[in-house]
Amino acid sequence: MSAQVIDGRACARALKESLEVDVARLRHEGLGIGLATVVIGDEYSSGAYERRLRRLADELGVTYSPQTLPGDTDQEALLTRIGELNADPAVSGILVLRPLPSHIDEAAVFRAIDPMKDIEAVHPENAGLLALGVPRFVPSTAASCFHLLDTWLDSVGEDRADFYHRANIVVVGRSNNVGKPAISLGYERQATVQSVDEWADRTTGIGRYTRWADVLIVAAGKAGLIRAEHVGENAVVIDVGINAATGPDGRVHMVGDVDHDAVAPRVRALTPVPGGVGPVTDVWLLRNTVTAARLLAGRPIDLARPSLPTPARVLLEAS
Amino acid sequence: MSAQVIDGRACARALKESLEVDVARLRHEGLGIGLATVVIGDEYSSGAYERRLRRLADELGVTYSPQTLPGDTDQEALLTRIGELNADPAVSGILVLRPLPSHIDEAAVFRAIDPMKDIEAVHPENAGLLALGVPRFVPSTAASCFHLLDTWLDSVGEDRADFYHRANIVVVGRSNNVGKPAISLGYERQATVQSVDEWADRTTGIGRYTRWADVLIVAAGKAGLIRAEHVGENAVVIDVGINAATGPDGRVHMVGDVDHDAVAPRVRALTPVPGGVGPVTDVWLLRNTVTAARLLAGRPIDLARPSLPTPARVLLEAS
Repeated sequence: MSAQVIDGRACARALKESLEVDVARLRHEGLGIGLATVVIGDEYSSGAYERRLRRLADELGVTYSPQTLPGDTDQEALLTRIGELNADPAVSGILVLRPLPSHIDEAAVFRAIDPMKDIEAVHPENAGLLALGVPRFVPSTAASCFHLLDTWLDSVGEDRADFYHRANIVVVGRSNNVGKPAISLGYERQATVQSVDEWADRTTGIGRYTRWADVLIVAAGKAGLIRAEHVGENAVVIDVGINAATGPDGRVHMVGDVDHDAVAPRVRALTPVPGGVGPVTDVWLLRNTVTAARLLAGRPIDLARPSLPTPARVLLEAS
Repeated sequence: MSAQVIDGRACARALKESLEVDVARLRHEGLGIGLATVVIGDEYSSGAYERRLRRLADELGVTYSPQTLPGDTDQEALLTRIGELNADPAVSGILVLRPLPSHIDEAAVFRAIDPMKDIEAVHPENAGLLALGVPRFVPSTAASCFHLLDTWLDSVGEDRADFYHRANIVVVGRSNNVGKPAISLGYERQATVQSVDEWADRTTGIGRYTRWADVLIVAAGKAGLIRAEHVGENAVVIDVGINAATGPDGRVHMVGDVDHDAVAPRVRALTPVPGGVGPVTDVWLLRNTVTAARLLAGRPIDLARPSLPTPARVLLEAS
């Protein structure tokens, strides 16, 4: 039996539709919503991400202010620019795209962002609120992993609480921007959560842990890291990886951290790459921007567990 | 074969001796070091803790300012008192003892503490720095668990990095003050870390996870939670629990979360209760106070991995 493929594009469409309703209502009420991105240099991947966000913002009716700075911008100038965005009432959310050039002190830049506009929760205060279980913002990739999981559970008729309370969630990779926030969201759902570091891959092997995962979230940035022998038959696999690979025809395409063809026949469900976590993440970032606009306007919002108006039945297809 | 019993009192003595040297040198250099505790009401457990800290501070030559407020102190008055301690140059570190009365908003109190004096890292900024892997302060109980582990590894001649890189650390309990900081310290050591929530105890059972632990840290606050069938023979068990139990003679004594007599014959090493994590935690809190004094004076300190001058061979005894 083949796994269900969780359709991230369908999930993103549903999320976007509900967000359009939100944005329209808020704008009707006179609330401005603005996203500012900061890109330094001409890194290809951040440029592509920036273009996707620009299109989404346009479609949703969110003001978009791209800040593109030359690769040799110094720390001082960057901090000044962030200070201007902090002070700009038309900017609700600020996203500094990584990677930053090596001469920039990333931590100092993240600290300079107004915590109320810090939609990716990179400021220590927001990372702390997330770690303490009372998040102001949830980083969009981790939020998207669990939005996909929650929506998939709804679609197969499983009770979310029942599932998570019994689940062993294994997260491969523990970056500050994806792995650790995903772990925090697993805690919020009162699941057992195991964090596997790259060192386990070099010593005992990660299969020792990943094979027992009910939910396997892979955010390691290594193409094909997860193979057939790393998964169990009940696993729901969320593949966060986006890696460039050259096919036999010499063309470059994107692949995940999961060897999709090998793993799909063995597991319960999995997300594809592309078309899995990525599209949801893009919309979630705009959603965080809307949350920031509400917060800045002093409007009440259930920060920890924002409710979704979307019915969002995810379309499933056999792989 | 019986497990090694890791002697927390011996470890605490060695830590205290090295700290005495530090404090004497800093005082000789004219640096004031002061600890302020805030106790509200007459909760027995916080009173006992407060008395132990008072004695330790006296012995080390650290100025001690206990703030004992009546149980009906209101939020406003408490925040005012914390503001005074923030402003007092004789106070380096502030500890607000829990539990707080139910009419007090704990999060607001923790937020009011100057992050530079927040020796238990309860302010979101310090919780965030810890979560991001660049801690300013490490909460004393979690720090003590890993100090005991590190010291025990040294004493049996195992290389710390080799051990942790291959280790599956299972942490039972995920409180903000103990479980989560312990998890962060496991990440810092590049181990695999699994966080088991109380829900697993009610559904699938925790043995499913704890049996595979190379290191089992138990901070659940349930006497006797960990029994013989929950552990594997290679486990090193760190028992954070301190629970009051009434013996057959009717006298109250302290027991851990681990059923010591049942577990000791089956594991590699374990900490006793009392005499395990507790004594080290008391000294570590004073150590964090010294760190705060250095920080406030603008002295350089390796925050993430403070080096210990102590040779600290832990005394071991057969159980």
